[in-house]
Amino acid sequence: MPNNKPRIAVDAMGGDFGPQVVVPGALHAAKTGKAEIILVGDEEKVMAQLARHDVKGLPVSVVHASQVVEMEEKPSEAMRRKKDSSIQVACNLVRDGGADGVISAGHSGATLACAMFTIGRVAGVDRPAIATFMPTERSHCVIIDVGANVDCKGFHLLQFGVMASVLAKTMLGRENPTVALLSNGEESGKGNLLVKEAFDLLRASSLNFVGNIEGRDLFTGKVDVVVCDGFVGNVVVKQAEGLASSLGRLLKGELRRGFFGQIGTMLALNALKRFSRLVDYAEYGGAPLLGLKGSCLICHGASNAKAMSSAVRMAARFVAMEANSHLSEAVAANIDLAGPRRPAVNDQR
Amino acid sequence: MPNNKPRIAVDAMGGDFGPQVVVPGALHAAKTGKAEIILVGDEEKVMAQLARHDVKGLPVSVVHASQVVEMEEKPSEAMRRKKDSSIQVACNLVRDGGADGVISAGHSGATLACAMFTIGRVAGVDRPAIATFMPTERSHCVIIDVGANVDCKGFHLLQFGVMASVLAKTMLGRENPTVALLSNGEESGKGNLLVKEAFDLLRASSLNFVGNIEGRDLFTGKVDVVVCDGFVGNVVVKQAEGLASSLGRLLKGELRRGFFGQIGTMLALNALKRFSRLVDYAEYGGAPLLGLKGSCLICHGASNAKAMSSAVRMAARFVAMEANSHLSEAVAANIDLAGPRRPAVNDQR
Repeated sequence: MPNNKPRIAVDAMGGDFGPQVVVPGALHAAKTGKAEIILVGDEEKVMAQLARHDVKGLPVSVVHASQVVEMEEKPSEAMRRKKDSSIQVACNLVRDGGADGVISAGHSGATLACAMFTIGRVAGVDRPAIATFMPTERSHCVIIDVGANVDCKGFHLLQFGVMASVLAKTMLGRENPTVALLSNGEESGKGNLLVKEAFDLLRASSLNFVGNIEGRDLFTGKVDVVVCDGFVGNVVVKQAEGLASSLGRLLKGELRRGFFGQIGTMLALNALKRFSRLVDYAEYGGAPLLGLKGSCLICHGASNAKAMSSAVRMAARFVAMEANSHLSEAVAANIDLAGPRRPAVNDQR
Repeated sequence: MPNNKPRIAVDAMGGDFGPQVVVPGALHAAKTGKAEIILVGDEEKVMAQLARHDVKGLPVSVVHASQVVEMEEKPSEAMRRKKDSSIQVACNLVRDGGADGVISAGHSGATLACAMFTIGRVAGVDRPAIATFMPTERSHCVIIDVGANVDCKGFHLLQFGVMASVLAKTMLGRENPTVALLSNGEESGKGNLLVKEAFDLLRASSLNFVGNIEGRDLFTGKVDVVVCDGFVGNVVVKQAEGLASSLGRLLKGELRRGFFGQIGTMLALNALKRFSRLVDYAEYGGAPLLGLKGSCLICHGASNAKAMSSAVRMAARFVAMEANSHLSEAVAANIDLAGPRRPAVNDQR
């Protein structure tokens, strides 16, 4: 579809800074010609921001939404009470065919809930999951799930691996992505009950499954995709962010003691900052919520305009690469493995 | 018991370097006057090492063990086949009252298995667990369990918290240690099924329970004790080790690009090395296996003599502080919470 750019609905009210950061970010993405932008939010506020930029000829439109989900609201309540929130309206657009994807830097729990309950699932996917790009010594790997599903069965992990493998192929250009299970040991017998169950399914799957990896290998770049449940994944990703920040503060203290303190501090902190930026998934654009009909990215609340721009382009690329059709095929190719367990899945979310 | 120093059985054959590192380490500890040492292993090899040192007047004895568990052996098979391995004989000494504690830098799985099945459990403890000291921006916190129990129930986590709280009190000198559950969010409703179950028990317990903490707060020093199951704990500890190594390698690359590359590299890497040493629990002596009658420390295979010496002193301090009697009391004080669930515990290990 050369003339039809992917249409990305952008929650204009999301993030710590709202329209004043989201709008310029989205416009930057529009200028690259990779996406058509639909800004969703308080029309007056959004227009006020648009007025500050030269938008002539840019594929940008505005859809009004009268409400905003606040950070302290519970996702379920926000969904019930605020039917006209910017994130809900943006998700409705995807559901109704008015947009191909949605991104939000707003309340991530609400974004997750709205997207999960509004946008339909890709055929065969039992549970959508959040993937994120984790920096490694070589490049990046994909970790899935980092928070959507805290209690899982083995076949959920199998499907996470299938979805993330498609992501690594389409977004990172890995030919035949290697997939590993995060475990407490590399040997095949290692793991808790969940990991052992998933191990057998992954080994029998169409994926390029390479076995277990330990926490110490998360950053070496040994594999393309790391699979875990959303509880473990959330702890792991937040730990990486936290350790990078703590190390920065510690280095600052340590280095100031040295003779060449000032120079050393400067150099080391710059280097560490570059790494921290890699660790912070916001800088990579956002965390894709995989398994939904459409392209959905959850961005960090602290996202700047650059991060919002890359999120829009990533969401657009996901659509342009027809990732969901590959995803659907890959899930179908492994559906027999999940088969016998499927009746039990009605506990879904 | 002023004249009775804690008697620590030391697996002299353990670790990457065997007697040539373990023996000097143990002797160093003996010289501090904090412990009586029983070196367990191949008598000839141990005596050869002892001959190189001035041991006159030191409380050191040797107990012969004809076998050694090799790193590639399975713990269960090693236990069955090698009844006279150094680690097994050392554990036998504790069981039979010939020693108050045991330390090993050998095969950690075998050490765990031998200790668990040989040394009895403290009354009321359902599952012994491995604690470790994690460096934080302020000092250290205790994380429990880091690998002994990969599948847990809520009341196991409660007991882990009780045991680690005693450890933080006796070994780190924390008056009324704060205890938190590692979860995917700080709010009380967050967590997987296990964490939610444990949350209610911990809140009802005698502990200074402060709720959930996220992965990003593991290193800030916010709490004294972090409780999780052994799967999550193992991933988390290994991730910290791995991230510190990866950051070191990345910083090396980053800094060499800079103008003041050489100086910066040197300074930053020294600082990082200091931090890595803190992350590596071997440097803190070892990871205590809590809940056994006696004091048991699992040391890193790469432990040097200094690490072995601190491990011996830590094991001795654990005995001298009568930590197990405090532990037993604390478990008893919370036994009602675990009560109704206890019949199900016969799946133990």
